[in-house]
Amino acid sequence: MTYQELYSNIQDKHSYLCVGLDTDINKIPIHLRSFDDPVFEFNKQIIDATQDLCIAYKLNLAFYETLGHQGLISLERTIAYIPDDIFLIADAKRGDIGNTSRMYATAFFDHYKFDSITVSPYMGKDSVTPFLSFKDKWVILLALTSNIGSTDFQLLQYNGNCLYEEVLKKSKQWAGPDQLMYVVGATQAESLKSIREIIPDNFLLIPGVGAQGGDLEAVTRNGINKSVGMMVNASRSIIYASQDIDFAKAARIQASQIQSEMKRLLEKYG
Amino acid sequence: MTYQELYSNIQDKHSYLCVGLDTDINKIPIHLRSFDDPVFEFNKQIIDATQDLCIAYKLNLAFYETLGHQGLISLERTIAYIPDDIFLIADAKRGDIGNTSRMYATAFFDHYKFDSITVSPYMGKDSVTPFLSFKDKWVILLALTSNIGSTDFQLLQYNGNCLYEEVLKKSKQWAGPDQLMYVVGATQAESLKSIREIIPDNFLLIPGVGAQGGDLEAVTRNGINKSVGMMVNASRSIIYASQDIDFAKAARIQASQIQSEMKRLLEKYG
Repeated sequence: MTYQELYSNIQDKHSYLCVGLDTDINKIPIHLRSFDDPVFEFNKQIIDATQDLCIAYKLNLAFYETLGHQGLISLERTIAYIPDDIFLIADAKRGDIGNTSRMYATAFFDHYKFDSITVSPYMGKDSVTPFLSFKDKWVILLALTSNIGSTDFQLLQYNGNCLYEEVLKKSKQWAGPDQLMYVVGATQAESLKSIREIIPDNFLLIPGVGAQGGDLEAVTRNGINKSVGMMVNASRSIIYASQDIDFAKAARIQASQIQSEMKRLLEKYG
Repeated sequence: MTYQELYSNIQDKHSYLCVGLDTDINKIPIHLRSFDDPVFEFNKQIIDATQDLCIAYKLNLAFYETLGHQGLISLERTIAYIPDDIFLIADAKRGDIGNTSRMYATAFFDHYKFDSITVSPYMGKDSVTPFLSFKDKWVILLALTSNIGSTDFQLLQYNGNCLYEEVLKKSKQWAGPDQLMYVVGATQAESLKSIREIIPDNFLLIPGVGAQGGDLEAVTRNGINKSVGMMVNASRSIIYASQDIDFAKAARIQASQIQSEMKRLLEKYG
């Protein structure tokens, strides 16, 4: 998917919502367990209920890998079910030496057909660039994450810059805003202003609204750019809104509330 | 596996060799393609040919994930085939927010039965500690890697310390040498002396001997401790020593040369 296509989808749907399919076999409604592939059935119903409200789905690989190869089958079926015009994120946080990163890129872009993958910057340029050689595919680089541990290394000061600012400044030389996005946690809304000074045009993937406590209006006010430039992810607050037979309906209500709020915020700040 | 068991294996085998099963379906001998599971068949023959010479196998997840769920079946079969007294490393470089890291830990330790997993430190303490709550299981934290990109962030100076030194100093407070190892590239042999001042007792996983050009004697001289404290990995130089029908025999010759050299170095520096 191109930058312009992503922006058009946001305009059409009045939404910059990404729904996180962090599907935990132990948390899905009990009645689904009788299905041949409960994880896929859960995802299918969530997708049916939310696809007109969101512009992206984020699949957290951990939740599929924990089920072994059966989990990967559920992943493959889920990807095949998601409409092509919805941006597909592999939340995998990979990153390795060049020949290994190339293998991961092939896995996620060619085999699974994801549009994008989250990548950790710790190993530097040659661990990231192999993901950047695929047409209309994206790297979403970790910058400033939403968890408490983000203070351990990401905020270390180097010549007056935090490590995550160094990550932004160096990596923006590796690819343009048509290939490179960044993860910035919603709990870091105050940092978004200075982040936008470094990377005015790149899209941001912003997790942490909902279960992790981020504030959607503060995030939007500080993070929005002329192409909106944000995908805000919610996972647990949507997909586990109910653990009963009405889970998909409950998910739609939650997603719809966020989308309505996003519509309002787009009119206010866009 | 415990620290003492690992050290005993090193003493018994006069070896601190880890063989990397970076099995690329496009690089294995053509005659294996007629097998039902060529990747497993390749691994099986490599394991048969090298298990008395090495103390660990490292499985690079990228090479299995690139084949989708079929690759994970090959991974599962390979793990089941490796004898229990050989240390098993998931070279996966994971690391995410707490609930996701817990999922990965469950996947790699409970489902796949790995002894250890490589983890990226970028997201800080709460992304690493979920991996540390499993008995006799290990985190191998990225410190100073062997690739060119290691200079981009790992060598940034913070109050006179490089980032990777900060990683060592902070993380050693999260767990002891019986649970925590570090990745230090063999191309960084000169840094091993100062690394040993920070973490005298921890085991190091040292990739980069062979295809990446690291020097085994320099690594051993600078990195050895009283429990040897090192696993030196070689992948391509062993497993692709021949691409013909004699590949397992050729792999054994390569592994045997390294093990003989390790025996000499253990006598010289141990």
